[in-house]
Amino acid sequence: MASLKVPHPVPSPTEDAESLRKAFEGWGTNEKSIISILAHRDAAQRKQIRLAYEELYQQDLIKRMESELTGHLEKAMYRWMFGPAEREAILVYTEVRKANPTPDPRVIIEIACVSSPEELLAVKKVYQSCYKHSLEEDVASLRSCWSRIVSQLLVALVGTYRYDGGEIDTRLAHVEAKTLHDAINEKAFGHEEVIRILTTRSKAQLNATFNCYKDEYGTTINKSLPADSENEFFLALRATIRSLTSPCKYFEKLLRNAIINHGTDENTLTRVIVMRAEKDLQEIKEVYYKRNNVPLAHAIAKDISGDYKAFLLALLGD
Amino acid sequence: MASLKVPHPVPSPTEDAESLRKAFEGWGTNEKSIISILAHRDAAQRKQIRLAYEELYQQDLIKRMESELTGHLEKAMYRWMFGPAEREAILVYTEVRKANPTPDPRVIIEIACVSSPEELLAVKKVYQSCYKHSLEEDVASLRSCWSRIVSQLLVALVGTYRYDGGEIDTRLAHVEAKTLHDAINEKAFGHEEVIRILTTRSKAQLNATFNCYKDEYGTTINKSLPADSENEFFLALRATIRSLTSPCKYFEKLLRNAIINHGTDENTLTRVIVMRAEKDLQEIKEVYYKRNNVPLAHAIAKDISGDYKAFLLALLGD
Repeated sequence: MASLKVPHPVPSPTEDAESLRKAFEGWGTNEKSIISILAHRDAAQRKQIRLAYEELYQQDLIKRMESELTGHLEKAMYRWMFGPAEREAILVYTEVRKANPTPDPRVIIEIACVSSPEELLAVKKVYQSCYKHSLEEDVASLRSCWSRIVSQLLVALVGTYRYDGGEIDTRLAHVEAKTLHDAINEKAFGHEEVIRILTTRSKAQLNATFNCYKDEYGTTINKSLPADSENEFFLALRATIRSLTSPCKYFEKLLRNAIINHGTDENTLTRVIVMRAEKDLQEIKEVYYKRNNVPLAHAIAKDISGDYKAFLLALLGD
Repeated sequence: MASLKVPHPVPSPTEDAESLRKAFEGWGTNEKSIISILAHRDAAQRKQIRLAYEELYQQDLIKRMESELTGHLEKAMYRWMFGPAEREAILVYTEVRKANPTPDPRVIIEIACVSSPEELLAVKKVYQSCYKHSLEEDVASLRSCWSRIVSQLLVALVGTYRYDGGEIDTRLAHVEAKTLHDAINEKAFGHEEVIRILTTRSKAQLNATFNCYKDEYGTTINKSLPADSENEFFLALRATIRSLTSPCKYFEKLLRNAIINHGTDENTLTRVIVMRAEKDLQEIKEVYYKRNNVPLAHAIAKDISGDYKAFLLALLGD
């Protein structure tokens, strides 16, 4: 469930565009007014507002906001203004083009695994029309940034149009649970079989396989992976398994780490909140509370400040 | 250009359905009449006829034809009755499920490389809705049929949603021509770089890369590959390169081999003629004539007989 709260009745796109214009003009930008409007409109409404603004003032709203806002608020608002496919295409592109520090495999894993096959396809289409490349070739070209095996995993993850049906082949689930277990026990983590299974099977089938794994070996597959926080392949595998099967838990952990580590990780905080606000942020909040005994909004409020804080809290819908 | 010839005016779907019914009834099936109708209707018209037949006689036309026809004609007509995406999904599925002899990688390569990205996506969608699996996972599961490297190539080929635009990066073409040349010269054919380039770059970009290759090394990339007809990876690489850049030449060679080898290879003959009749069979015929100094129809007519021959010649449009 989305955490986004839209008022009823909602002002017309033209009224919103006029209010935004007022917020930009005069002495200094009125960030509070901008947040009060845009943090409470869904993707379709934001698109309409952008069109109305362009029509009224012959100016691109996103460009205008870039010149009016600064810092983390500007970045978060820029991400927020796009629809999901555009936003995710921009997120991956920004990551893929990063020379230093090394691109974060999690951004690619998240978008490949949490999205439905149709959503991922929509991201790939936007990516191609914006950047004149395929997502696959850009991820494949990054091979020198990661180990060979991480690169193999990522290329296969973005390159699969997974089956999305609910059918489960129980016999296959047993066979592949054993294949995974053998690969982990023989410490053959780079085993192509692990990559093949994780990158091609449907989510329903993988869920069945992971359940078999737990039933037969008494532990989850994620817990079977060695606890080596330095090994980027194990980290990538964990993120893959978690984001395929329990996206809310996966995002809860990202948020937890973004907040509790030394210095807030605003990039991750913004990415998760903006990306999930219209999808499942409500569930993520519940998982967060259950795990940390403190509401996510309180934890975030203690960690950041100003208009950026006001914006994220508004998206959290509390 | 298609080789298919449709009469003008064309009878209505109901008239065609009635004529087909007549051809099925009475003493023995009238194959000539069936061919004279169906070999001269395009995919949309055949679909309409199938619907009209179902409506008139509460019977599936394709099932009825299966019980009326036999041998190679039955098989060819069965393939012909479907639209391109259904047909190609069936072709790959039949190949992928074959235990013995080993599945023919060329069928998978053809469909992955000759198709446009949108056509391949349509095949994948039909495949999923018919078989409740993704094409990717079925191809990936075949790893034991082929060498590891052939399997890697095929999985990556079916798993890419290539960019379809015409933009070319000349600098990149030079760099990747050298990468390919180095891999071939070092006999590192299994080199992941070769697979990465062939499976992720757009066709326009690959064409530029292969042209650079020719300019800089004085020979085509295909000719640089060792002439080892036993090595399945070289064969698969050649088929990939040829079907990506010169599909008509690729199909001409398939047809030539299907005809001149000991005993006609009816499977290949049927596949190519039926698959290309509504697409580029006219060009394939021209390439065939140029290469063999004999019209394709003559060569086929000498090699096969009966109604099967009449059907293929009708599709050839001569």
